[in-house]
Amino acid sequence: MASELIELKGHIIDSLSLPRVLDGILAQGGRFEIEEIKIGKTRPEPSYARIRVNADSEEALENILAYVEKDGASRAWQWDADLAPAPKDGVFPEDFYCTTNLETQVRISGRWTPVRNIEMDCGIVVEDDSARTMPMNLVRDGQKVVVGHRGVRVEPPERKEPRGAFEFMTSEVSAERPKGLIVREIAHEIMETKRRGEKVLLVGGPAIIHSGAGPFVERMIECGYIDVLFAGNALPLHDIESALYGTSLGVSVEEGRPAAHGHEHHLRAVNTIRRIGSIKEAVRQGILNTGIMRVCVQANAPFVLAGSIRDDGPLPEVITDTMEAQAAMREALEGVGFALMVATTLHSVATGNLLPARVKVVCVDIDPAVVTKLVDRGTVQATGVVTDVGLFLMELDAELRRIGTGKEEKCLAS
Amino acid sequence: MASELIELKGHIIDSLSLPRVLDGILAQGGRFEIEEIKIGKTRPEPSYARIRVNADSEEALENILAYVEKDGASRAWQWDADLAPAPKDGVFPEDFYCTTNLETQVRISGRWTPVRNIEMDCGIVVEDDSARTMPMNLVRDGQKVVVGHRGVRVEPPERKEPRGAFEFMTSEVSAERPKGLIVREIAHEIMETKRRGEKVLLVGGPAIIHSGAGPFVERMIECGYIDVLFAGNALPLHDIESALYGTSLGVSVEEGRPAAHGHEHHLRAVNTIRRIGSIKEAVRQGILNTGIMRVCVQANAPFVLAGSIRDDGPLPEVITDTMEAQAAMREALEGVGFALMVATTLHSVATGNLLPARVKVVCVDIDPAVVTKLVDRGTVQATGVVTDVGLFLMELDAELRRIGTGKEEKCLAS
Amino acid sequence: MASELIELKGHIIDSLSLPRVLDGILAQGGRFEIEEIKIGKTRPEPSYARIRVNADSEEALENILAYVEKDGASRAWQWDADLAPAPKDGVFPEDFYCTTNLETQVRISGRWTPVRNIEMDCGIVVEDDSARTMPMNLVRDGQKVVVGHRGVRVEPPERKEPRGAFEFMTSEVSAERPKGLIVREIAHEIMETKRRGEKVLLVGGPAIIHSGAGPFVERMIECGYIDVLFAGNALPLHDIESALYGTSLGVSVEEGRPAAHGHEHHLRAVNTIRRIGSIKEAVRQGILNTGIMRVCVQANAPFVLAGSIRDDGPLPEVITDTMEAQAAMREALEGVGFALMVATTLHSVATGNLLPARVKVVCVDIDPAVVTKLVDRGTVQATGVVTDVGLFLMELDAELRRIGTGKEEKCLAS
Amino acid sequence: MASELIELKGHIIDSLSLPRVLDGILAQGGRFEIEEIKIGKTRPEPSYARIRVNADSEEALENILAYVEKDGASRAWQWDADLAPAPKDGVFPEDFYCTTNLETQVRISGRWTPVRNIEMDCGIVVEDDSARTMPMNLVRDGQKVVVGHRGVRVEPPERKEPRGAFEFMTSEVSAERPKGLIVREIAHEIMETKRRGEKVLLVGGPAIIHSGAGPFVERMIECGYIDVLFAGNALPLHDIESALYGTSLGVSVEEGRPAAHGHEHHLRAVNTIRRIGSIKEAVRQGILNTGIMRVCVQANAPFVLAGSIRDDGPLPEVITDTMEAQAAMREALEGVGFALMVATTLHSVATGNLLPARVKVVCVDIDPAVVTKLVDRGTVQATGVVTDVGLFLMELDAELRRIGTGKEEKCLAS
Repeated sequence: MASELIELKGHIIDSLSLPRVLDGILAQGGRFEIEEIKIGKTRPEPSYARIRVNADSEEALENILAYVEKDGASRAWQWDADLAPAPKDGVFPEDFYCTTNLETQVRISGRWTPVRNIEMDCGIVVEDDSARTMPMNLVRDGQKVVVGHRGVRVEPPERKEPRGAFEFMTSEVSAERPKGLIVREIAHEIMETKRRGEKVLLVGGPAIIHSGAGPFVERMIECGYIDVLFAGNALPLHDIESALYGTSLGVSVEEGRPAAHGHEHHLRAVNTIRRIGSIKEAVRQGILNTGIMRVCVQANAPFVLAGSIRDDGPLPEVITDTMEAQAAMREALEGVGFALMVATTLHSVATGNLLPARVKVVCVDIDPAVVTKLVDRGTVQATGVVTDVGLFLMELDAELRRIGTGKEEKCLAS
Repeated sequence: MASELIELKGHIIDSLSLPRVLDGILAQGGRFEIEEIKIGKTRPEPSYARIRVNADSEEALENILAYVEKDGASRAWQWDADLAPAPKDGVFPEDFYCTTNLETQVRISGRWTPVRNIEMDCGIVVEDDSARTMPMNLVRDGQKVVVGHRGVRVEPPERKEPRGAFEFMTSEVSAERPKGLIVREIAHEIMETKRRGEKVLLVGGPAIIHSGAGPFVERMIECGYIDVLFAGNALPLHDIESALYGTSLGVSVEEGRPAAHGHEHHLRAVNTIRRIGSIKEAVRQGILNTGIMRVCVQANAPFVLAGSIRDDGPLPEVITDTMEAQAAMREALEGVGFALMVATTLHSVATGNLLPARVKVVCVDIDPAVVTKLVDRGTVQATGVVTDVGLFLMELDAELRRIGTGKEEKCLAS
Repeated sequence: MASELIELKGHIIDSLSLPRVLDGILAQGGRFEIEEIKIGKTRPEPSYARIRVNADSEEALENILAYVEKDGASRAWQWDADLAPAPKDGVFPEDFYCTTNLETQVRISGRWTPVRNIEMDCGIVVEDDSARTMPMNLVRDGQKVVVGHRGVRVEPPERKEPRGAFEFMTSEVSAERPKGLIVREIAHEIMETKRRGEKVLLVGGPAIIHSGAGPFVERMIECGYIDVLFAGNALPLHDIESALYGTSLGVSVEEGRPAAHGHEHHLRAVNTIRRIGSIKEAVRQGILNTGIMRVCVQANAPFVLAGSIRDDGPLPEVITDTMEAQAAMREALEGVGFALMVATTLHSVATGNLLPARVKVVCVDIDPAVVTKLVDRGTVQATGVVTDVGLFLMELDAELRRIGTGKEEKCLAS
Repeated sequence: MASELIELKGHIIDSLSLPRVLDGILAQGGRFEIEEIKIGKTRPEPSYARIRVNADSEEALENILAYVEKDGASRAWQWDADLAPAPKDGVFPEDFYCTTNLETQVRISGRWTPVRNIEMDCGIVVEDDSARTMPMNLVRDGQKVVVGHRGVRVEPPERKEPRGAFEFMTSEVSAERPKGLIVREIAHEIMETKRRGEKVLLVGGPAIIHSGAGPFVERMIECGYIDVLFAGNALPLHDIESALYGTSLGVSVEEGRPAAHGHEHHLRAVNTIRRIGSIKEAVRQGILNTGIMRVCVQANAPFVLAGSIRDDGPLPEVITDTMEAQAAMREALEGVGFALMVATTLHSVATGNLLPARVKVVCVDIDPAVVTKLVDRGTVQATGVVTDVGLFLMELDAELRRIGTGKEEKCLAS
């Protein structure tokens, strides 16, 4: 027989923390007694519960406590987090604490210290009384890593009151929704993000170009609605193919008909850029004078192009080492407050893995399975929009210009 | 050993008739010798081939001849079609000839006579030296029905030279196409159909309303771009719900948020119309003064509402007997030259079954499986457009107004 | 300003009733004060909460009360339900109470009376102090119908502790699950249903036949694992085509290759049965001596075949009037305790509409959208299994024989 | 005005070469005159056509000739291929010839020389009168590369007479097919491949493990039915998680229920293998004593693990550089005669890019879009099977043992 007291504080009723914790205890084979409960009589007033957890063994108890911890339960009696050194480069100590993408605190020298660089599926390294997440491949021999679950607590996200179509969509995946509304909500989110001084990230696949939406994205970058671009080799390549030949995958973007030799265009395009040396140089030389990549270079919008094994070429700026690409993505995520993921499963899941849960994610794809996958892999904050990528971006661009601040006039002129 | 001479005429090379027939003979276990072949040296010049087919038995030979007949091969030596009386109401004689949706001729008294009312999966009834298709459930005891394959020939469709994005799409099902282009092509087809004096049919599902596209369809009917509407109970019901309550399936069409009691709205809407007696009467009384059904009634656009077992209510105009509904649909198809099928598998397949292959069909759905099903069920002329229904109709309406004849101004005013 | 006291009883914490009600009040623009709360210290011990709801107007208050009622909140102060007569046949009075598929009670003459024939989207008719649901099209002029929300309460379903793979799946829709396990769980559910003396319903689409799974279903009916069959015209027709010609949609079920004239087989099959007069008669005459329909007739397993507008023929037993078909389905659902829905959206949604939430539903389809649609239409108890229909039924049949009671030997012999 | 004579030889009628070439000429704006045509009177007898192509300009003529060349048309008058040096490492000369995945010949010094290492989207390097494909990133400064289209000819694939379910499926994508049959055909193909002394490749995604099919793949490798494995980081990682913890993505493979801390298992698993140093070493130490990776190591079945940006860890054997991974895949494809691609879009498309069209490809996924993508990207020989991965592999393993040579007994024992 083993027993431990846990506490819950805050909006534990309406955030569903309390019922989830009680359920979790029972689901894991434990029993509970509620020793004290105080429920706020109005919404702002916080609630409190103290609960005794009983289990058949110490091990079972530890299991339960670890289980309910992710819903905000913490031990009434507190310890500092246990630390152990990494046994070698790229390897965590046994029983290392695995991070979530929620805000997390570690108790060091009796003080709850926030963990920096929140990212799921990492370890936590403690140095000089400060704590930060550390991807497995980057940990260095001897660094002190949190082990076990004591002295760590996570903050479950506060539930907001739904306000518009957007909130009602959260984590839903449906094609049968009024799309005009959703476009307006997303445009509004982008404006809000900019207003907060944060950056908007676009994670995009090549269907953006195939579907003829390249010019809309180009304009959104030019007008400053998109600050950072993540893609693979295919989006920039088809964008450049389109700029050099007027085709995407060999199909005329203007007329929709296959061009003679069109299937070779993307290879000729990548060969041309490789000959010149880089996308940036091609823009500088005026060879590339239209398209998404052109505007990224001219507007100094940072882009990370991450390689994959199906790449042709690839383009010179593509980072072929996947771990290096992850590192470059992490760096470019600094300051990002909103992520729009369009028509790419691989890059969406990869980016979702790196984002803290507080960053809003909208995932747009015509295939509902893409959104499902993103959420299944842990990016629970993602809102899915099942729609046509080409028409969606056309409308989003139009809406942004409609509600914009006038600065767009200048962009449109260019 | 059995043998028979067959002939092929017309554009047998570029329509692929000849290679298909040769292939078909071999695939069915026969052998062929080409006795004569003349190939046109330019495109307009027709070609001709006479081919001897050999098989192991008379039965095998008949199998082969029936097989290649659908690619335009006909016996060099001709007989009149054999006829037999229907044994009772709703039943064809044994070995009745099953129709395709291609133009077909029957040899009666030595003359090739075109079959009227081309429709697949029917029999052919011959009366007074004229021939027409007959659905199984409508044949009457004693009517003379074509049996076997002799004396029947079908005309394989001529392949047209692809002209724009639309032709290149034919029978393709892809989300990765420039949608702006495709919208333009479809708008163009609608204008052409109107110019030929033919009617445009919309076959629509309730997602049109849920996705907020009701007003676009309303305007297209008002401006005369859509002449006939086929739907079930759900499209008109959610249209009426939207007119009476501003919601669709209980979700506010304007704001996207669930209304209080919203899930009951469609039931209250159908109850209201049932109380009044009919949709038409509700429009007349001014209770229904917006929406698709309102404009159908006021613009005298005929609509057929066909019932299904998942219907609530249903609305008074819904035809609950499925065979009666089929008959009403057949009648309303008179003069239809273009069919736009949007967001409904059941009604699309059912309408496809009734249409001759010469009527162009565009099937729009976000789920590629819908188009695949339509083509698998025999509507081979269908062009699939995998896109978001709401955004697609928004763009189609905008495009039609852009290229329209000015008459639209009046519509917009109303 | 308006105010009302509501009560919650039972497992209001772990069933999430309490947090949902509190959230609902706020979401609808109200405010709450918790006047009393008692939480059971162990799972079996029930909890109780009394909450004051405040709103800006009487109307707003009514909205809130209606909203939270579906989560089990009832007014602390009780009235009898209000009744009003149906104004004419097939029409409910204004403001009629719309049913859910949850267990419901109506207060009549001061007593809470359970509503019989629980079915969603109906009205409630009260006669002789008893209450039952009534579909809109069946209500008769003058019958007394519950109006408003007073005096009605619904019981939210108790959450069970998850036990196996099956419970963890609930309302999830994923292809990435161990299918062997899920087959075992479903086989187990079927055995349990039979043990409780309840019936197992199969709602099936024609893909069962196309995918070669006909013999497995045949055996499951023969062995008594399936008691009732719901289908359209296509499943029995392709089953009969398969029995008479060895093909399904013209493709050989044994060899997978298209048969000569194969596309005509289903029409010849339906013509044959129409000539004979009925499926039953065809079995009696020994013309139909294999297949699912054969075993239904011989094993006296009731079947309801509901017509749709895409039907060919149709078969004599097909009910072409959709409202009559609904009525026949309602009748055949008596005693059904488990419903397996395979490869049909239309019939699954239609059957889901008729089932109370207490009947477990498993919906099997290769397309995740089918399950999503079923749940979106209110059949929240449905568990989705995204898998291959043919292989699934093969495994389910094998598993049932593995765990069966020996009675199967006799079936297999036949 | 420009003009050129082209020739077509072989089975130009039934392979559809002739009609396609004629169509292509017209579609590209040219005109043709057939100067001579001889059609074989029986299937084995080859046919011949000589056609004059007329166009408005030399440039238009070149376009047409390039267009029809892929259907087997070659100039009646022959030149050697033109060569130009690569301008620098990793860059082809302007106007380099882009390869297809069809058998190709280059005319060098008056002789038609077969191109080795057929692979699409490459250049052709000529050295010492021999020719081979060269990926763009591997070409070295100064190597002689074929430019333009003269002196190159491709052999369109011969159409085989369909034999079983498998051939009828070719490039079809349908869930509504008898799956038992298809499993038998694939098992037969695998046996045939082994009999020819060629290798069978499995390209697999992690859903193989999630769906509980790991043990079936394990046995197929052990019995020698699968010789080579291509995967990413996820398949081996979840396989190892399953071996070490009995879970896949934290869900118990045996019971289907989430394990406590289960979501951390895959991270702990990759950390363990990184600590040990490699998968091979973990097998050698007996720490990894079950699973797919274990059997690959013990049976000396080569595996290529290619990294991607969503990888956790990754495992030590994962090649993080995507160009290095491509090179390793190319090498491992030597001798592969049949490729089974299961539940992975990225690796399927990447492998399809590297395979010549003569290698049969079967692509198994529950999502039809995966197969569509593979074929769209040029792997036209791929046969799609839309089914449940777990149940499919279960049946394939059972079928292989059924038809196997007895050697399996030994495998099963281990």
